[in-house]
Amino acid sequence: MNREELFKIIKKKKSFLCIGLDTDINKIPQHLLNLDDPIFEFNKQIIDATHHLAIAYKPNIAFYEVMGAKGWESLQKTVDHIRKTTNEVLIIADAKRGDIGNTSAMYAKTFFETFDFDAVTLAPYMGLDTVSPFLEYEGKWSIVLALTSNKSAADFQYLTDKVKNESLYETVLKTGQSWGNTNQIMFVVGATKAESLLAIRKLAPDNFLLVPGVGAQGGSLKEVAKYGMNDTCGLLVNSSRGIIYASNDKDFAEAARKASSDLQKEMRIHLENAGLL
Amino acid sequence: MNREELFKIIKKKKSFLCIGLDTDINKIPQHLLNLDDPIFEFNKQIIDATHHLAIAYKPNIAFYEVMGAKGWESLQKTVDHIRKTTNEVLIIADAKRGDIGNTSAMYAKTFFETFDFDAVTLAPYMGLDTVSPFLEYEGKWSIVLALTSNKSAADFQYLTDKVKNESLYETVLKTGQSWGNTNQIMFVVGATKAESLLAIRKLAPDNFLLVPGVGAQGGSLKEVAKYGMNDTCGLLVNSSRGIIYASNDKDFAEAARKASSDLQKEMRIHLENAGLL
Repeated sequence: MNREELFKIIKKKKSFLCIGLDTDINKIPQHLLNLDDPIFEFNKQIIDATHHLAIAYKPNIAFYEVMGAKGWESLQKTVDHIRKTTNEVLIIADAKRGDIGNTSAMYAKTFFETFDFDAVTLAPYMGLDTVSPFLEYEGKWSIVLALTSNKSAADFQYLTDKVKNESLYETVLKTGQSWGNTNQIMFVVGATKAESLLAIRKLAPDNFLLVPGVGAQGGSLKEVAKYGMNDTCGLLVNSSRGIIYASNDKDFAEAARKASSDLQKEMRIHLENAGLL
Repeated sequence: MNREELFKIIKKKKSFLCIGLDTDINKIPQHLLNLDDPIFEFNKQIIDATHHLAIAYKPNIAFYEVMGAKGWESLQKTVDHIRKTTNEVLIIADAKRGDIGNTSAMYAKTFFETFDFDAVTLAPYMGLDTVSPFLEYEGKWSIVLALTSNKSAADFQYLTDKVKNESLYETVLKTGQSWGNTNQIMFVVGATKAESLLAIRKLAPDNFLLVPGVGAQGGSLKEVAKYGMNDTCGLLVNSSRGIIYASNDKDFAEAARKASSDLQKEMRIHLENAGLL
């Protein structure tokens, strides 16, 4: 899926919502635990209830890995179920992988061949070598960590290079754009610093930004839209816990639909205000 | 396993060899492919042939992930087999994970509870939050990427902060030491830049360094030992392909033993020359 196709879906669904499938066996409703694959069953019901409202799903790979082989089966079934349900969402592996050479090639093969993901989040520390094998896949996306919303992001991301006179995260934004075109590269930008989105938009005017941290992590959707939107929307705003754990009872899927719908309605207003609908 | 125990094993085995289990279904001997779990069978024979010569095994997680759920089963069996065979090796997950909050906690749980690894490689981009859940496990190690040996390491690792007047990788080495003690924190330092090991040793005199890139990636063991060794050895030098693919015929395990033994003999000389044996 390229940028234009993604924007078409955004306009059709009037939404730029990404739903994070951070599915934790200790947090899902009790009544699912007797089933053969509770993680998949939970995801399936969430997907069935929300896919008309979301433009992306983002399984958080850590939550599947922690279950060992069984978790990877649940992940496989989840991705397959999304594909079977709709071709109008992006499926993002939130994996934050980062390696080089044949190892990086193996990670690309994992997420784009073994699993049928559209996009993978990647950590930039080792530079282009981390991303290049992913770029060889036509129609797939690399989503590079730029500015994250956690407290210790300040440990390294704000260090300022004395020659370039710019922060590490700014260099990542600039260098990352040279690695591929706007159909290949997105950036992760934390939402708790909405005002920095203004500066980030100047540095990366055309790239889609994956923005976590709206909801449980405290970001404001209004500010993200105000500072981050561009002429193809350019935003995928993620909510995980606020949607998937909106209820932990038998009505969890309906509650997830309601929470997604509330966000979608707000997103529709922001898209309208920006003249994009 | 703490630093002192690790040094004891190094002295006993007269080795600081880490064997990288980058086990690729397309590279292992043909005669294994008819077995139920060729990846595990390959690893098992390598481990049985080399465990008296190695002080660490380092499964490269990408190579298991690419097989999906089946790969995670092979990984589980491999870790269990090492544990059953000997308690005198460190088992390192080369996973280069890097996330925050409950996701980071899930990764720690994956490698230290779901799997019984002793250590995990971690990417520092998001700062302390990436490492802190791993530090809560007594006797376990976090191995933080500092300076890597790939070409595009220069994209970011050599950027020089204008206030600190030091490279990003130097800041990682300094800051990383503040996150935990020398029984908890190691650093990854690429071997193709052996002379930089001298400066790195000044910055991190006591931490163990995991050094990939000796062998296939072109590093020199002699130089690594010369510049990187400290009074508890302080080095884990990794070789992957040079050992596990020393032969791709039925004699692969014997060839791996021979390749390991050759490295171990050279390591013994370096340990003797440093007065550590």
